[in-house]
Amino acid sequence: MRLFITTLVLSLFVCGQGWAAAADSLKYVDAAKFELIGKGFADTEGLYDRLPSSLKDKTRQPVWWLSKNCSGMAIRFRTNSPVIGAKWEVSGDVVMNHFAPSGIKGLDLYCLKNGKWQFVNSARPTAKATTAIIISHMTGEDQEYMLYLPLYDGLVSIEIGVNATATIENPKIDSPKKAKPVVFYGTSITQGGCASRAGMSYTNQLERMLDRQTINLGFSGNGQLDLEVAEAFANIDASCFVIDCLPNVSVEQMNEKYARFLEIIRAKKPTTPILLIETVLFPHMYFDQTVFSLLHEKNVTLKKIFDARKQKGDKNIYYQKAENLIGTDSEATVDGVHMTDLGFLRMSKELYPVLKKLIR
Amino acid sequence: MRLFITTLVLSLFVCGQGWAAAADSLKYVDAAKFELIGKGFADTEGLYDRLPSSLKDKTRQPVWWLSKNCSGMAIRFRTNSPVIGAKWEVSGDVVMNHFAPSGIKGLDLYCLKNGKWQFVNSARPTAKATTAIIISHMTGEDQEYMLYLPLYDGLVSIEIGVNATATIENPKIDSPKKAKPVVFYGTSITQGGCASRAGMSYTNQLERMLDRQTINLGFSGNGQLDLEVAEAFANIDASCFVIDCLPNVSVEQMNEKYARFLEIIRAKKPTTPILLIETVLFPHMYFDQTVFSLLHEKNVTLKKIFDARKQKGDKNIYYQKAENLIGTDSEATVDGVHMTDLGFLRMSKELYPVLKKLIR
Repeated sequence: MRLFITTLVLSLFVCGQGWAAAADSLKYVDAAKFELIGKGFADTEGLYDRLPSSLKDKTRQPVWWLSKNCSGMAIRFRTNSPVIGAKWEVSGDVVMNHFAPSGIKGLDLYCLKNGKWQFVNSARPTAKATTAIIISHMTGEDQEYMLYLPLYDGLVSIEIGVNATATIENPKIDSPKKAKPVVFYGTSITQGGCASRAGMSYTNQLERMLDRQTINLGFSGNGQLDLEVAEAFANIDASCFVIDCLPNVSVEQMNEKYARFLEIIRAKKPTTPILLIETVLFPHMYFDQTVFSLLHEKNVTLKKIFDARKQKGDKNIYYQKAENLIGTDSEATVDGVHMTDLGFLRMSKELYPVLKKLIR
Repeated sequence: MRLFITTLVLSLFVCGQGWAAAADSLKYVDAAKFELIGKGFADTEGLYDRLPSSLKDKTRQPVWWLSKNCSGMAIRFRTNSPVIGAKWEVSGDVVMNHFAPSGIKGLDLYCLKNGKWQFVNSARPTAKATTAIIISHMTGEDQEYMLYLPLYDGLVSIEIGVNATATIENPKIDSPKKAKPVVFYGTSITQGGCASRAGMSYTNQLERMLDRQTINLGFSGNGQLDLEVAEAFANIDASCFVIDCLPNVSVEQMNEKYARFLEIIRAKKPTTPILLIETVLFPHMYFDQTVFSLLHEKNVTLKKIFDARKQKGDKNIYYQKAENLIGTDSEATVDGVHMTDLGFLRMSKELYPVLKKLIR
């Protein structure tokens, strides 16, 4: 009966199951041919990795493995195909109990309409390797697209599918603008846990809102102020560095490493704006008194670190309070900690005006 | 490497993994001892089933099996325990690629604070049977709770865990008010696909907003105007019937069965308000021309059915346009079709003032 229900529900629930055959008839092109955005470093082990290969034996192993999740990256291309599909194989085939597979290891397609990025459709993973039609029955006009890559898995390969007679080529429009990206360093939340699809992580939403490339250096459970990671990303010619790692560090770790982490960035980028973000006020803290005290203590500690840096004469350091970051109705998370699309939209809307000023 | 990453990410990502041992030390009480809300019929095969056993050989098999998913139901209780946990076993252990397990088969706890229901925390399924602590370190004051059951799976059993010395008993407060529930009939979206946790389906959100019990008769892929289902639910002493099934029926099916479906309700409930909802305007329709035409045609057809019913003198029938139901930014869904928590919050906010008037 268990199998029966699973099969039944799966087959009834899914829209476009009949597309599988149609998906096979498309012409597939290796996505490596097209512009890749959201990548911070050129010298990586795999094409879709997030840290330079020089860090391989230098950083902690969990950070290294998580850097192979391609969160924040997207393929930019242009096509006149009335149908768009994809073939992709993930490396980990990761499963989590509070995260939809579409967000962990699916793809998410946007199209540039009247200067704004608009959601087209997502591609849902059916196995370690999936072939899927993302959208069909379009007019066939030449349009600019952005295909977001998995948030919590790596890619072995990815190809984009179009009609046999269609053209597919590199974009003509520089959007989101590549120069002077915003670099985000942080936790599972920063990495995109738990958006329903890749386009809804807050760094990807801000990329569209700001029309500016963002680089995602969120490492699930491991945004622990690793100094060698700061050494690396301080090389990026960023418009702003955003540090959002408090949920992953203890007060002791903050006191031990946060100031040094900032000094490392400042050694290479003396005046680039740095935005320090307080820890999100997890909704379950209104019931769990231990969590309440801990979050409060972390934010008090961050304010002290910020003030000390200010007193040292750093005029380009900024502070983001958590107060309104995810709304006040306690509904923004899946598990009291990780954001849903709702939580990420609220975070993005709150951070947008702040970052818009900082990246000018 | 695949297993390594999966294990790594899972263990790093999860908050409160160390709670497993603590969860075993609680006193567990069968939830059947407490008030169950959101159930439309008393004479069901299983305690947490959604259709009466009389329909077993009368309705289509997919409808019957889906009626064993306990969407919309919740356990109401009261306890002074500083920690709350749960032991539950699901029947199908359903997996879907666009739906987080926490929403499919997890639990979701709310607490009544100052007359409003507030999210406490969710319980994430780790296997077919799970034991988990939902919240701890509370003050230990006596409070009213509501524990939402899985949206897309059935329950074999469920027990609530509290401290050995704590009291746990039936609620003292009638909230959400049990009398005159709002009954929803519809599709996968109605059933709650794809909320991140049970409390975020739109029928559950409206239950809290309206402070009124709601009955969920959403059948994934199978809200196909089955007349015997209408025969059954027309017996419920409802304050309002909401019909939201358009995504699951063709225009032909609508023309063939919709008017009859309404007559069946009217035979038993001549004046109870009935709200007809247009099909959601799926965001991918702005690219897929076939979907665009089909949705438009369905909504035109529904308006005709509504007008005909009005002309027959039905003064208690109402019409809900889809226009603003999920916002206009195309971001409300996981896959162009199914709502995320963001989409469901928008739907709920849009339907709330309408239903508030109708259920007076």
